[in-house]
Amino acid sequence: MMFASDNTAPAHPAVMEALAEANAGTAMPYGADPWTEAAEARIRTVFEAPSARVLLVATGTAANALALAGLCPPWGRVFCHRLAHVEVDECNAPEFFTGGAKLTHVDGPHATVSAEALEKALAGYAQGVVHEAQPAMLSITQATERGAVYTADEVARLAGIARARGLAVHMDGTRLANALASTGASPAAMTHGAGVDILCLGATKCGVLAAEAIVLFEPDRHPGLAWQLELRRKRAGHLFSKLRYVAAQMTAWLGEGEGAASQRWLALAGHANAMAGRLRDGLEARGFRPATPPSANLMYLRLDAGAHAALQAAGAVYYAGPPDAAGAVEARLVTSWCTTAGEVDALLAALPEAAAPAAPAA
Amino acid sequence: MMFASDNTAPAHPAVMEALAEANAGTAMPYGADPWTEAAEARIRTVFEAPSARVLLVATGTAANALALAGLCPPWGRVFCHRLAHVEVDECNAPEFFTGGAKLTHVDGPHATVSAEALEKALAGYAQGVVHEAQPAMLSITQATERGAVYTADEVARLAGIARARGLAVHMDGTRLANALASTGASPAAMTHGAGVDILCLGATKCGVLAAEAIVLFEPDRHPGLAWQLELRRKRAGHLFSKLRYVAAQMTAWLGEGEGAASQRWLALAGHANAMAGRLRDGLEARGFRPATPPSANLMYLRLDAGAHAALQAAGAVYYAGPPDAAGAVEARLVTSWCTTAGEVDALLAALPEAAAPAAPAA
Amino acid sequence: MMFASDNTAPAHPAVMEALAEANAGTAMPYGADPWTEAAEARIRTVFEAPSARVLLVATGTAANALALAGLCPPWGRVFCHRLAHVEVDECNAPEFFTGGAKLTHVDGPHATVSAEALEKALAGYAQGVVHEAQPAMLSITQATERGAVYTADEVARLAGIARARGLAVHMDGTRLANALASTGASPAAMTHGAGVDILCLGATKCGVLAAEAIVLFEPDRHPGLAWQLELRRKRAGHLFSKLRYVAAQMTAWLGEGEGAASQRWLALAGHANAMAGRLRDGLEARGFRPATPPSANLMYLRLDAGAHAALQAAGAVYYAGPPDAAGAVEARLVTSWCTTAGEVDALLAALPEAAAPAAPAA
Amino acid sequence: MMFASDNTAPAHPAVMEALAEANAGTAMPYGADPWTEAAEARIRTVFEAPSARVLLVATGTAANALALAGLCPPWGRVFCHRLAHVEVDECNAPEFFTGGAKLTHVDGPHATVSAEALEKALAGYAQGVVHEAQPAMLSITQATERGAVYTADEVARLAGIARARGLAVHMDGTRLANALASTGASPAAMTHGAGVDILCLGATKCGVLAAEAIVLFEPDRHPGLAWQLELRRKRAGHLFSKLRYVAAQMTAWLGEGEGAASQRWLALAGHANAMAGRLRDGLEARGFRPATPPSANLMYLRLDAGAHAALQAAGAVYYAGPPDAAGAVEARLVTSWCTTAGEVDALLAALPEAAAPAAPAA
Repeated sequence: MMFASDNTAPAHPAVMEALAEANAGTAMPYGADPWTEAAEARIRTVFEAPSARVLLVATGTAANALALAGLCPPWGRVFCHRLAHVEVDECNAPEFFTGGAKLTHVDGPHATVSAEALEKALAGYAQGVVHEAQPAMLSITQATERGAVYTADEVARLAGIARARGLAVHMDGTRLANALASTGASPAAMTHGAGVDILCLGATKCGVLAAEAIVLFEPDRHPGLAWQLELRRKRAGHLFSKLRYVAAQMTAWLGEGEGAASQRWLALAGHANAMAGRLRDGLEARGFRPATPPSANLMYLRLDAGAHAALQAAGAVYYAGPPDAAGAVEARLVTSWCTTAGEVDALLAALPEAAAPAAPAA
Repeated sequence: MMFASDNTAPAHPAVMEALAEANAGTAMPYGADPWTEAAEARIRTVFEAPSARVLLVATGTAANALALAGLCPPWGRVFCHRLAHVEVDECNAPEFFTGGAKLTHVDGPHATVSAEALEKALAGYAQGVVHEAQPAMLSITQATERGAVYTADEVARLAGIARARGLAVHMDGTRLANALASTGASPAAMTHGAGVDILCLGATKCGVLAAEAIVLFEPDRHPGLAWQLELRRKRAGHLFSKLRYVAAQMTAWLGEGEGAASQRWLALAGHANAMAGRLRDGLEARGFRPATPPSANLMYLRLDAGAHAALQAAGAVYYAGPPDAAGAVEARLVTSWCTTAGEVDALLAALPEAAAPAAPAA
Repeated sequence: MMFASDNTAPAHPAVMEALAEANAGTAMPYGADPWTEAAEARIRTVFEAPSARVLLVATGTAANALALAGLCPPWGRVFCHRLAHVEVDECNAPEFFTGGAKLTHVDGPHATVSAEALEKALAGYAQGVVHEAQPAMLSITQATERGAVYTADEVARLAGIARARGLAVHMDGTRLANALASTGASPAAMTHGAGVDILCLGATKCGVLAAEAIVLFEPDRHPGLAWQLELRRKRAGHLFSKLRYVAAQMTAWLGEGEGAASQRWLALAGHANAMAGRLRDGLEARGFRPATPPSANLMYLRLDAGAHAALQAAGAVYYAGPPDAAGAVEARLVTSWCTTAGEVDALLAALPEAAAPAAPAA
Repeated sequence: MMFASDNTAPAHPAVMEALAEANAGTAMPYGADPWTEAAEARIRTVFEAPSARVLLVATGTAANALALAGLCPPWGRVFCHRLAHVEVDECNAPEFFTGGAKLTHVDGPHATVSAEALEKALAGYAQGVVHEAQPAMLSITQATERGAVYTADEVARLAGIARARGLAVHMDGTRLANALASTGASPAAMTHGAGVDILCLGATKCGVLAAEAIVLFEPDRHPGLAWQLELRRKRAGHLFSKLRYVAAQMTAWLGEGEGAASQRWLALAGHANAMAGRLRDGLEARGFRPATPPSANLMYLRLDAGAHAALQAAGAVYYAGPPDAAGAVEARLVTSWCTTAGEVDALLAALPEAAAPAAPAA
């Protein structure tokens, strides 16, 4: 019963198979190989973005930090939620890669940036005052770190606000697949169609060993940036000599299908979401009330002491915050492409009824 | 006929098999898994360094830049050869990761640092003058970028000179396996036994997909450094969430054998070296004179216009510098664990006799 | 009627005289001169800190950013108020000098850090989790950017909380003189006596042309740091070749008196504070209610549209925020060592009665 | 007898007088004052560069490092002489400010960059290879650190070579005044007329307390750069709040005269040069042979043990390298605007005849 993180999941068999196929014989290094070309092309196709520039890397932190550094100068300011991965979980990688930019918090529910809060934040920080960090970017996570999903319209609204002030828009798409599977929006509509300048497309948590892509949708809007990103990737040690292996994962993960339903990445994410839905339904039936909206593949919920102990005893693995005075914890449960209905049901079976209608966690 | 680089080679089948084995089921992320533990332990065993701290990463540039940053402050100076990979081929990664340190050249044949030049360089740069970069590290590459190999005694002499001045010693061991196979020295004797503080152990070029290790041999000599390196790895985006896959490669590559002869990494490197030897013998028999000493798995040599054209026509792949007035080029030929005797012989067969006893390239 | 900032003030005549005296003949550069020695010694005396290390610089931003960089690693976290100068007004200088550290907000009234908020913030950020910025420093401003002054006991309480968690304590003392004059605390009691590790002592706003000092009170608590700060100062371009001129300003500003009352810096700050007191009294008599506690030399207050217009018409110079719907603004009024009672009275005379008991600004 | 450095000299009385004048009353901070406006305008006039952007700072290291950072990206390469101040004497400030760029050496006599060496260096480093630092700038020092002076034609030739490859051209003009006084070239002809993009104009060594200017001659050639430089200056702590005092020095130093002969800065430099000429003549008359061409205000020469001892005994102050086996040293003698003929003659009088025709120092 593994619910700790989607990064505990193994790679999908099709990905392993693709790795084996990519291992046949020699190939020119640093991306001058057919696998890299194919992966880049496939991303352009899937996102309906024929002129997009794609840079493959192998960790989400690298993708995010490089993307931010590409569009935020050292004296710049990136607006993001206080719970954003780039703010909380990357040990100052954005500050390192940008050469010292500042991340400024914008509030909103479930780790989303709200349009109102963004308007207010942007009004509060001047452009062109030499003493202050210069507003430069908006960064949003799709799906968010608290499991919420923006609709394409919501992304468009946020991006519109940001672009009207001259800011570039970054989407941390570590779980973009889950968000797309949840909303049914097309990859294009959810990203460049909604005003996203640069996307970090995450495959690692969603079915591969280690593969991410930085996608710059409209290089012409940002002269010189595509080449600059290549230089940044190299000097950060993120240009793989045997890039074909990263590329092969990415292509296999995306899959070959034409329609959304038949694309592997969306199918895998859809399964993870479905398992989260099954989990949520079961929890609610037992009187538990997840703090997270029902949309993607993770949820936070308050577990009273008895429930937490029962799950631990049953061998369920998940992250939990420190217990409160009554022994209750805030737990995070994450499903993945390989979570089974049996696992979900086993967790639910191990769970006593909620002691009392638990209040949602903050 | 692929002689462009050892990073064109695929991964060894045992490595692919290990990847598949590591893909069974879920595992905790960020190195909290048995594969990572095993790889770290195996490196400690192979290097006879029971207290060494090991950090796995996936590119050589990352390993080098992190290792240098760990021991060279932003105001520091790293002494290295002007042809060192860290100086030439990493797009300022060392400068980036260190926060602005300076690389200072020390001369020597075949991209080695010579003891005399090092003594002279160290005498020429003061410690403790606030206006100047502070001497902080020696960085050597084993085997060098021009194919030369230091003996363990030579390493010890250089490290002794450096340490006497308070400098830490870094070994870029991208091709350490080739150097060990060539000299027969033990991993321990060639590294910490000879005064190396920090090693970048390269597997990528020598038989895996992407795996490198930073090995800090004596953490007690450098209080706080091991933890600092972990933080540096994370904030540079080089801590893999699914680290098990990097680890599994490393363990499989090193192999399980007790003696040097039975360790896979040394066997693979020995094969690459043997193929280089076969190539060298054949070249010399045809009147060509490699500019590189006969020690590891790569060589530079001057090809006259006819020879170059003949090889190109035969489909040999290698890097060559710009042609001189007579059309001659300096070519680099690299063998790998998967180079076959047939490939070597085919290249030799395609080669006409040298037009004239070619002078060695500079 | 200049109330825009204390940095609009000229230098005190004694400072100009000292400059002229320092201009007699040649002197060795980079601080190897008697003026620098004297300034450093004088600071040690005034602060009763015989082993303190003193580094003179010429801007407050330089002093702050160097001090933070000395004690906060690139992966570190500095706790400060969201209105702190280091957070708001230095265009990411702390992020630049530290190599990418993060500033995290701690709340409190009038731009002070409150002990409760600090406790809570520290409890919320883990030490030793590799994914997160590492708590490293507390930075407080004395007097604060909103005019409040910490007592020595309050500083001690904050510093105690910080040090108990292993954090170093920085005091931005741009207006320390005003705070000392306001509280009557001794320089020693207010700084190292209260647990401050490193002080930025500001003279620029308080009576000189350009002079600041970084004071590291107990170098033995921070091995290597004093020398590191010297290197940082140099490589940031803040080591003046003709340092004597900065030093001469500092010594003249501090003055030669034994007791606090006779020290020039405290006398000048006392005058500025007294002028602020006179201003406050007059404002309150006219029905205005400054939002700032009556303690140092600056205050924020809400001016209704009529009052703002009247002051502007009379030639009063001060900063004001954007007008609200009714035309009211939040104004900042700052006094300095050269503000005269006549100027204060002229401003008050120009001011109509407050339209209504104005609510304090936020 | 002070010959250690021109930065040992005091400020010229006219500069002190200007400081006193600037000290009259309050003034708006951060350059929004008439003195700053006047200094910037005066520089534009003197350099016949009506659209130039001028940024005042207070140290040469700051000026150089900011100028380089403005035009060289973190992954860039600056070509300079191995003895350039930016390479030798700034404790990695260029690397710090650029975010990790690399300085690459180009040879030439007396610390000049030679056109031939520059051509060769540029041919040896590719543009557009992602693995390598990208050639970005040429930096030359006028006059050089070894006392040589480029003619305007020589500057134009170097700049032409650099610009043809897409490089920007930086001139470290710490002693530009001496070079102009020596050659008679106009400020315009020696700088932007010869292809210099960005100049660091040094006054500190030439008659003021602390004042330097970064001059960007043609902002339109570098869109966005002027504003970027302002942000860089601020976040590096080099924007003075009381900038009027830096500005007043600069204006007074430049002087008001129309023709070159009547401009104070050139007159002061001319005097320093003349004193160096007198010194050189005297040295040669006594059999000493300076290693430096007779052009600016500093010279290196070999002093035998006896001569060195005699000068020391007479109280002459100068820097000397370590003695060789025979006790001879390489000495550096620098004259300044305040060196007197009497001082020169006293040094010469203290000097015995050269033991033997000394060979020039390397």
